[in-house]
Amino acid sequence: MTHMAAELIRSYQTRADQALDRRLPSTDLHPSDLHRAMRYAVLGGGKRIRPVLVYATGAAVGALPDALDGSACAVEFIHAYSLIHDDLPAMDNDDLRHGQPTCHRAFGEALAILAGDALQALAFQVLGQDATLIADPVIRLRMLGVLAQAAGSRGMVGGQAIDLAAVGRELTLAELENMHIHKTGALIRASVLLGALSQPTVESAVLERLDHYAKCIGLAFQIRDDILDVIGDTTTLGKPQGSDRALAKPTYPALLGLDGAREHARLLHQEALASLQPLGSKAEALRWIASYIVERAY
Amino acid sequence: MTHMAAELIRSYQTRADQALDRRLPSTDLHPSDLHRAMRYAVLGGGKRIRPVLVYATGAAVGALPDALDGSACAVEFIHAYSLIHDDLPAMDNDDLRHGQPTCHRAFGEALAILAGDALQALAFQVLGQDATLIADPVIRLRMLGVLAQAAGSRGMVGGQAIDLAAVGRELTLAELENMHIHKTGALIRASVLLGALSQPTVESAVLERLDHYAKCIGLAFQIRDDILDVIGDTTTLGKPQGSDRALAKPTYPALLGLDGAREHARLLHQEALASLQPLGSKAEALRWIASYIVERAY
Repeated sequence: MTHMAAELIRSYQTRADQALDRRLPSTDLHPSDLHRAMRYAVLGGGKRIRPVLVYATGAAVGALPDALDGSACAVEFIHAYSLIHDDLPAMDNDDLRHGQPTCHRAFGEALAILAGDALQALAFQVLGQDATLIADPVIRLRMLGVLAQAAGSRGMVGGQAIDLAAVGRELTLAELENMHIHKTGALIRASVLLGALSQPTVESAVLERLDHYAKCIGLAFQIRDDILDVIGDTTTLGKPQGSDRALAKPTYPALLGLDGAREHARLLHQEALASLQPLGSKAEALRWIASYIVERAY
Repeated sequence: MTHMAAELIRSYQTRADQALDRRLPSTDLHPSDLHRAMRYAVLGGGKRIRPVLVYATGAAVGALPDALDGSACAVEFIHAYSLIHDDLPAMDNDDLRHGQPTCHRAFGEALAILAGDALQALAFQVLGQDATLIADPVIRLRMLGVLAQAAGSRGMVGGQAIDLAAVGRELTLAELENMHIHKTGALIRASVLLGALSQPTVESAVLERLDHYAKCIGLAFQIRDDILDVIGDTTTLGKPQGSDRALAKPTYPALLGLDGAREHARLLHQEALASLQPLGSKAEALRWIASYIVERAY
């Protein structure tokens, strides 16, 4: 069963890569430098966790795979743009991403800023106009609202601002969680919600369960990230090991210790699985993702 | 008549300021630094040309003013975010905007990048969800598509990338126009289109005339900008005079001479007025804007 779920996840990743490639502007189109930078940042690597969550949630509620490609791409475009801007010298000043030069290292800072900006616009364009998305315009508008809120100042970008203000400060556990709920959690929740809304008749009780699942794995994902920053090595991570500590960023291991952080992730994992319980075998891919998130090595 | 039109424009500017203020997140909301930076960048000044175009176009086609606030804010949020990012050290490296410190000078580079990112998300959120916008979800989705394309890699951001690649290069007139059609023209056209689409029964022939008007004034606006950069002074412009030349940016006066650039703007002005001819007196504010654009001193 786990093996089958892992196969399914791989097929979602492949599907996401193809869907992204088709929706990114060709480098034949003018301005080709900008389109090259956008494609580099999106297609250059990444685990496609957010698109995979869209597909896996869609499968759990019985949405058609074709109805999910647009949402899968929209959340990945938002994620990719946020990484480009996050890596900039004025932000985290990272040289490596997915083991390759960051976008500004490869294309210069100015073009990297613009590539991020254009990817955000593309995310909303895809969600508003993609032909593969379900047709009902009322649901489309709801999905656009979900993505815009998750991406904006009360979601992902807000979390990055909280993160900025936290560098070099001591945070309480509540403050640290609040930061992550915004910074990474908002877009993970949006990915699950967009997948669920792709089935027009999805019940609100199911939406709530899936949303709770998403909250739990979002936090667990971040805890695992913090743990890996302590125990991983640069080659496996694709970024310098210990870079959070070097920047004096607050982390779960710093607050709870390594064992405490692991235990916190384990409890969130259990809670995520409990939320999926009534969904039966259709939610197998979502279960596999929850396990992967707390066990992954990079 | 001209005096009445000028009064009307001022009332549109006031309306835009109030609508923007209401839609920007309060600084009481967390993260307050980010919200302060967003409000500073949007409310700190500016002529509100794009919102005014939304209102003036709406009036020309008989749209209700209440149906226009959302579109007016969406185009201004996109414009304001593009100025924040354009002023960054990696881009134009400007210290002054509207006679005040640029966003990154006032709040730091990292928060300025994030404020721009959040304003872009807010633009799409407003267009997708604002209660004052007309109700028909199909038209809303069309408007979202108009804005996303105008803002993205084939619109405004694409124009900025063309501009980047052009610094220090000799451009032909066709290349210079292509840059401006994208960089400033796309969002000006979107402003006019969103205003027109706010009247659900607007005819496609009227849309085409208004679109041609928008193309003409968009280029005329840029020519005037280039002329002002040569003849204006720093106090009136709110930015250092001659800053384009200092950056070796291609300009209309450099290509056509000052008189040639003025003549080019005059012809575009005439063409813009001709496009409005069948719309009669309802288009008076649009006529005034066209005249203002080629005559303004800052």
